[in-house]
Amino acid sequence: MPVPAEVLTALEKILGDRLSRSKSDLDLHGRSETYFPPAPPDAVAYPETTEEVAGIVRVCAAHGCPVVGWGAGTSLEGHALAVRGGVCVDFARMNRVLAVHPEDMDVVVQPGVTREALNRELRATGLFFPVDPGANASLGGMASTRASGTTAVRYGTMRDNVLGLEVVLADGRVIRTGTRARKSAAGYDLTGLFVGAEGTLGLITELTLKLQGQPEAISAGVCAFDAIGPAVETVIQTIQLGIPMARIEFVDAATAAAVNAYSGASFPEKPHLMVEFHGSPTGVAEQAETFGEIVADNGGGRFEWSARAEERTALWTMRHNAYYACLAARKGATALVTDMCVPISKLAEAVEETRADIAAATIPGPILGHVGDGNFHAILLVDPQNPMDLAEAKRLSHRMVDRALRLGGTVTGEHGIGMGKLGYMAREHGDAWDVMGEIKRALDPQDLMNPGKLVRQG
Amino acid sequence: MPVPAEVLTALEKILGDRLSRSKSDLDLHGRSETYFPPAPPDAVAYPETTEEVAGIVRVCAAHGCPVVGWGAGTSLEGHALAVRGGVCVDFARMNRVLAVHPEDMDVVVQPGVTREALNRELRATGLFFPVDPGANASLGGMASTRASGTTAVRYGTMRDNVLGLEVVLADGRVIRTGTRARKSAAGYDLTGLFVGAEGTLGLITELTLKLQGQPEAISAGVCAFDAIGPAVETVIQTIQLGIPMARIEFVDAATAAAVNAYSGASFPEKPHLMVEFHGSPTGVAEQAETFGEIVADNGGGRFEWSARAEERTALWTMRHNAYYACLAARKGATALVTDMCVPISKLAEAVEETRADIAAATIPGPILGHVGDGNFHAILLVDPQNPMDLAEAKRLSHRMVDRALRLGGTVTGEHGIGMGKLGYMAREHGDAWDVMGEIKRALDPQDLMNPGKLVRQG
Ligand SMILES: Cc1cc2nc3c(=O)[nH]c(=O)nc-3n(C[C@H](O)[C@H](O)[C@H](O)COP(=O)(O)OP(=O)(O)OC[C@H]3O[C@@H](n4cnc5c(N)ncnc54)[C@H](O)[C@@H]3O)c2cc1C
Ligand SMILES: Cc1cc2nc3c(=O)[nH]c(=O)nc-3n(C[C@H](O)[C@H](O)[C@H](O)COP(=O)(O)OP(=O)(O)OC[C@H]3O[C@@H](n4cnc5c(N)ncnc54)[C@H](O)[C@@H]3O)c2cc1C
Repeated sequence: MPVPAEVLTALEKILGDRLSRSKSDLDLHGRSETYFPPAPPDAVAYPETTEEVAGIVRVCAAHGCPVVGWGAGTSLEGHALAVRGGVCVDFARMNRVLAVHPEDMDVVVQPGVTREALNRELRATGLFFPVDPGANASLGGMASTRASGTTAVRYGTMRDNVLGLEVVLADGRVIRTGTRARKSAAGYDLTGLFVGAEGTLGLITELTLKLQGQPEAISAGVCAFDAIGPAVETVIQTIQLGIPMARIEFVDAATAAAVNAYSGASFPEKPHLMVEFHGSPTGVAEQAETFGEIVADNGGGRFEWSARAEERTALWTMRHNAYYACLAARKGATALVTDMCVPISKLAEAVEETRADIAAATIPGPILGHVGDGNFHAILLVDPQNPMDLAEAKRLSHRMVDRALRLGGTVTGEHGIGMGKLGYMAREHGDAWDVMGEIKRALDPQDLMNPGKLVRQG
Repeated sequence: MPVPAEVLTALEKILGDRLSRSKSDLDLHGRSETYFPPAPPDAVAYPETTEEVAGIVRVCAAHGCPVVGWGAGTSLEGHALAVRGGVCVDFARMNRVLAVHPEDMDVVVQPGVTREALNRELRATGLFFPVDPGANASLGGMASTRASGTTAVRYGTMRDNVLGLEVVLADGRVIRTGTRARKSAAGYDLTGLFVGAEGTLGLITELTLKLQGQPEAISAGVCAFDAIGPAVETVIQTIQLGIPMARIEFVDAATAAAVNAYSGASFPEKPHLMVEFHGSPTGVAEQAETFGEIVADNGGGRFEWSARAEERTALWTMRHNAYYACLAARKGATALVTDMCVPISKLAEAVEETRADIAAATIPGPILGHVGDGNFHAILLVDPQNPMDLAEAKRLSHRMVDRALRLGGTVTGEHGIGMGKLGYMAREHGDAWDVMGEIKRALDPQDLMNPGKLVRQG
């Protein structure tokens, strides 16, 4: 059902030429980073204030018109596809850092601020925002997908780093959740409810985020292993020993090869661990030394580390580009990116089985991940012209989901549900999924906020 | 409205003589630790299994009968008072540790396990459960109040340490939330919703908890200050410097005096900080040294620390008994325990103003708290025979609430809402409080689970 003309008229009254119906805008906001077919909205709104967002939602609510939030569009499960049309609310123009409180180590931002922009702005304060999904996502999008990434092993996910929110609800009410106090026992944790809700309960218009002090010393390093088993074993032992790793990332041989080709690096084509330590100079040295011993115990190659910022930046830039490096490894490919997360004791089993499965498959699938959390991805490379490829990718992904659940884990460690994981919610949650639906209906009885996502449909 | 006879008959069929109507049992479960008038339930149930709990709730739901959970009864805001009668579900007999997973550093427990029992059981594993409210509370109660305590500054609150739950809902359905994976982006954070819900959304029948490795080295110490200002300033600087304190507790001069009288200690009657460091031997020494420098910069007394377990245990036992020491400081007194929490930059202002307020009041009120979180309590000592005392305590408490909100904080850092803070929910949360009510009605439309608490009444 297309958006009624009176909705567009009313929205134009609020937004003027910041309501777009241009084909290029609709196309852009109907695409995703991965394999999902496009699903464009009927209009794209570029609000600048919370009041405008509330106005948009009220107009849409009055006419039963869907509302879909849009941050940076980097989510991997087709989260922001307008599968029932409606109005896409793009937060690109709500991109101001509203207040930095260095003495309390928190910051108040609009949802369209990206994590790189935020950290640029914070640089002079000696503080940083740690959650790092690699992509330059928006903070509103990151909160909405409960994003994490390379640093979650040390600093937690968005669940742990959002102190409070301002949210526009499905009926246009504007609420605030949380305070600037570090903890509270004052009622239901609404902040936690909206974090990870994928825009299905309301639109986030402001976030208060915890910050971290830039560590006195940082060192990073990388080492190769002859096989996956010992690499993963190293991770498990490191975590169990309680070494406070800031990052501990795994890439398999295929990923190393792809990164070499893409970034001109020269990693041996073997499984690697890439790690980072944060702390005092002695603390960091102590950690690196202990880690090196674990690597040696597991027969890993020389563990080389450096405290030099340029080398570190080069390392993490390569890691962050690994997704694109993998995509480039198969010409014209698109990807189905899997995202399983298991208890750390099951990590070796999970990675090994997945590796074997992909080795026997008809498509390539480099593996990499935030293994300190028990979380990893296979980037299943699909020729978009070949339907057999996508079927094969879905088969492999389905088996990874089975494996995750069998091993006591979750079907998505960090990417979220979107379109791609909806079919697994009943299996992961059982009757608890119905409870999610009951909450959704209570807060959005008309099913207007990002409809078609997260809860049971129909 | 008393519980109908057929409810009691049906419950007896499930529980046999584990359904109690003895006066002593009703009295015991109608009392609270603080100043609230008693409100006994009509019956007390002692289930042993989740199925029994579900059976109890189904019977009650069929007859519109209230159900109130009971852990250790140590909550401070009258949380578990059966203000509308009904059935109290005491989890004392669901007190087994179901599974310890040392390799994943998690544990599965029944809700009646107390934190001391859990840590006794874990001792041999080299792991511990860090959340420490002082009182020997039950894990189910601690989750339900989103408890924290002395170690939250390092290890977080119950919000951060519960991986998953089993919950019996208001209609008797049994759901599971979360998995044993360390993170997940699979839908709404139901675990987070039930943590802190004070039993108003369902009864927790099982918890999966994160554990921590026992630190290689622990040291603890104490130091006196001539005034509150420099003590609090020391805390602020310590937190801002990012020293990973395991505990940083404040007690004022009145508390020190009470502890001396109660525990035979000999603290100077001055404000004190009590601290603990966890880490490697060098790390702990480094932290203690830096902390000592901050103390000296702020004109504090000699900072004495020790790595000896007995001295440490003595220190924390005194701290944990401080509440009872304060109570004993005024003969026959009961207490109104306040619980404000503010951004750390406002802590000095908050403590100083509160101190001045109490100094001018007609009742004593020692101050102590988990100042690393910006959280502190005044233990307002009330003669239960003197209604003027309670009125004075409520006036002081009310002013602390005003202060907390004015300074950007919360009306309760860790104790929760219960009966005592219900009147402040609208002010702290505005329309977000209505959203809590909408969630409550969605999950408990008959208002049977701990009625009269947390959400707007009537
Ligand atoms: C190369 C690459 C690497 C990645 N690595 C990681 C990783 O390591 N870890 C990780 O967690 N993710 C990763 N991702 C996925 C992605 O970056 C995250 O999902 C991110 O959180 C999405 O943020 P976004 O701003 O792009 O949101 P979008 O994609 O624009 O939106 C995501 C969802 O949030 C909703 N939304 C957006 N803004 C709001 C708002 N203000 N209010 C309410 N709802 C809103 C949308 O409707 C949609 O449902 C990666 C992606 C890429 C392309
Ligand atoms: C001396 C002293 C010091 C304290 N210090 C602290 C402190 O530092 N930090 C802190 O946070 N608290 C502190 N408290 C308060 C108290 O210990 C906490 O609130 C604790 O979490 C209560 O746990 P409990 O098992 O006693 O719960 P109870 O008091 O029995 O119940 C608390 C609430 O939870 C509900 N409930 C209990 N079990 C369940 C269940 N299984 N399912 C659903 N609902 C349930 C009850 O209905 C009630 O609403 C202190 C108390 C005392 C007496």
